[in-house]
Amino acid sequence: MNVSADDVREVAVRARAAAALLAPLPRAAKDAALIAMADALVARTPDILVANAADVTAARAAGTAAGLVDRLTLTPGRVAAIAAGLRQVASLPDPVGEVLRGGVRPNGMELRQIRVPLGVVGIVYEARPNVTVDAAGLCLKSGNAVLLRGSGSAYRSNTALIGVLRDAAASAGLPADAVQLVPGTDHESVKHLISLRGLVDVVIPRGGAGLIRTVVEESAVPVIETGVGNCHVYVDAAADLGMAVAITVNSKVQRPSVCNAAETLLVHRDVADAFLPRALAALAAAGVTVHGDDQVRAAAGAGAGAGFAPAVVPVTDEDWAAEYYSLDIAAGVVDSLDAAVAHIRRWGTGHTEAIITGSLPAARRFISTCDSAAIMVNASTRFTDGERFGFGAEIGISTQKLHARGPMGLPELTSTTWVGIGDGQLVE
Amino acid sequence: MNVSADDVREVAVRARAAAALLAPLPRAAKDAALIAMADALVARTPDILVANAADVTAARAAGTAAGLVDRLTLTPGRVAAIAAGLRQVASLPDPVGEVLRGGVRPNGMELRQIRVPLGVVGIVYEARPNVTVDAAGLCLKSGNAVLLRGSGSAYRSNTALIGVLRDAAASAGLPADAVQLVPGTDHESVKHLISLRGLVDVVIPRGGAGLIRTVVEESAVPVIETGVGNCHVYVDAAADLGMAVAITVNSKVQRPSVCNAAETLLVHRDVADAFLPRALAALAAAGVTVHGDDQVRAAAGAGAGAGFAPAVVPVTDEDWAAEYYSLDIAAGVVDSLDAAVAHIRRWGTGHTEAIITGSLPAARRFISTCDSAAIMVNASTRFTDGERFGFGAEIGISTQKLHARGPMGLPELTSTTWVGIGDGQLVE
Repeated sequence: MNVSADDVREVAVRARAAAALLAPLPRAAKDAALIAMADALVARTPDILVANAADVTAARAAGTAAGLVDRLTLTPGRVAAIAAGLRQVASLPDPVGEVLRGGVRPNGMELRQIRVPLGVVGIVYEARPNVTVDAAGLCLKSGNAVLLRGSGSAYRSNTALIGVLRDAAASAGLPADAVQLVPGTDHESVKHLISLRGLVDVVIPRGGAGLIRTVVEESAVPVIETGVGNCHVYVDAAADLGMAVAITVNSKVQRPSVCNAAETLLVHRDVADAFLPRALAALAAAGVTVHGDDQVRAAAGAGAGAGFAPAVVPVTDEDWAAEYYSLDIAAGVVDSLDAAVAHIRRWGTGHTEAIITGSLPAARRFISTCDSAAIMVNASTRFTDGERFGFGAEIGISTQKLHARGPMGLPELTSTTWVGIGDGQLVE
Repeated sequence: MNVSADDVREVAVRARAAAALLAPLPRAAKDAALIAMADALVARTPDILVANAADVTAARAAGTAAGLVDRLTLTPGRVAAIAAGLRQVASLPDPVGEVLRGGVRPNGMELRQIRVPLGVVGIVYEARPNVTVDAAGLCLKSGNAVLLRGSGSAYRSNTALIGVLRDAAASAGLPADAVQLVPGTDHESVKHLISLRGLVDVVIPRGGAGLIRTVVEESAVPVIETGVGNCHVYVDAAADLGMAVAITVNSKVQRPSVCNAAETLLVHRDVADAFLPRALAALAAAGVTVHGDDQVRAAAGAGAGAGFAPAVVPVTDEDWAAEYYSLDIAAGVVDSLDAAVAHIRRWGTGHTEAIITGSLPAARRFISTCDSAAIMVNASTRFTDGERFGFGAEIGISTQKLHARGPMGLPELTSTTWVGIGDGQLVE
């Protein structure tokens, strides 16, 4: 479905008007709308499933991979879970109005910095209908109007879901245009969206690296880059090796398809001989293919002599750069902590790096030099997640340095305003 | 002077290496370098003045306006003042390492969010040699390497200043490449700089609207937009009219050439007859030309009958959009507070808006609906300034919503990292 730039601009203009109405709303009004939306999703589940079934049938006919079809598919249980997510967002504190800094200036003027909505938030995402509702709920709670540009293969599902959400918002007295679908399913509609500087305040791309790169490179609207993760586990000379094996395996295999899974293992040379045979055995037992440098492969050979033969294939530069999202891991031996950090700075994506060490100086050095969104000391890389950080909900994980870095919850969907209150103060 | 993309890339690569060394430095090391820089500027003032004189002579020969030549010109007193600015930055707290949020998760993992340097900061600015040193000082204090791309007409001055700063940094044990001049004086060198995504973490354009627009539209590097201000003063129905006159005049005339000066006056119709004659007389007495709508011009006519004849010329859409930076102000009468906010949302740049009112509901409504970086209640628009907010120093005033909004001091030159510290925690 092709749409013109004017079609997309028109929804953005309506979103801007809705945003002006949302900004001053108190929490109670927004929570009532979120609850109404949750109720409506459950009540209108049959309509939603009919629309979704059409998307699923088309995806199957197009030969879409089973995993992707599964993520696209809705069931009564899944719709109920999505509705429960909205109720959970309703239970979270409202970030709008939070005072971040404040005081009284020497001239008697009160000055405070408060959180305010961003305004209009655009989300470009993959064929996951749950994201449609999650993103709408988080944006509404933070006082933002949202423009949802989901995958074309979920277009019927998204149309149905957004229709339900809009009706519910209106029934709760909020502007229906607080939640809108961006028309169009081709790449042009994304390009129209990211050209609307001044109408759209931020665009958040979610999904594959290619989509994110396109949006980042071409957008005139400010972008928050999310979710690309080439995460490292570094086993320091002072590591507890049993802990290091457990964290390596957990970081790699607990859920390999996500951005906070580990993709590279770096081992200090002083513990390589003691650590590698145990780690390779554990990784092999978990079904992981290791792509190792010469020293790792030598350790695998030694391990073979000791009774097991883990599969270690030669590592290449492509492996160091890879976000496998699969049961593969690159592995190498480094001469020092600083060499590990240099490797991470060269090949990493600035998502999450873990160090396993009992040394406080080593931990401090790693934290202060790694330059990533999250650093885990003696803990799994998999903890970098809004839910696990206690945010209650997450719109994505930022790997950029401006505005928000790491898991983004409701506060990260706000901007700030400085408010000065006086009784006639003038500048001299 | 033309330079290639590779020339600019080379300085950025060096900056990146320097940034890795700066990140873990404690405050004392950075402050010592700032003091060494200040000392060196004073000691080498003669060299700096020779280079500056060549720029000034060339600028005069090129017919540059006297005001711009004045901003370009250095004297022993001005160099001493610039050096004093570095000492002041040394006296400010180090933002790096500040803990913004923190606690212990249910699984025992400590989790905290800390400030870290952005990395490499590019600044593109006008022919003001003081900005060269101010920006270098603020970036160094916040642990960032800086790439300075000043105006071509200050190239000799900047080369001399940066030479002094680099020598002093090196003498204090810091990498000289913490401070670098971007080679080249043509627009291509800016384009090269803003293409270096991944090497440069943020670009901050300072100066004219044209420069800022070019950088914002063409940059692949994240940008912080600064300093464009079409600020409004709204006189509410519940205003103290004497206060309103004083704030209007102060906001307009105290320093008209800066971004936080008022450019438009909006008056609630209920007080127009009582307020406008007084305001127009005061503005006329201060030498301000008022560009008024029909009601404002009628009030001026009534004032003429009462013994004065302020100059009120008809207002146009260009006036509503104008950032005059001169002794001109657009003025109109509005039917309500909401109409004033609608006007501000339509024509404003989101910098600073003032409301004069004794009504708490009116103040609350204005604050929650205006959508600007700063809202002043019963105070001059001119207060939106890092020094006046108590930041001690300012790199610019952001009018964008992401990352930083309003005056940017040292904390705004940082990003954040999440640090999780555990004793072997795994994700289940």
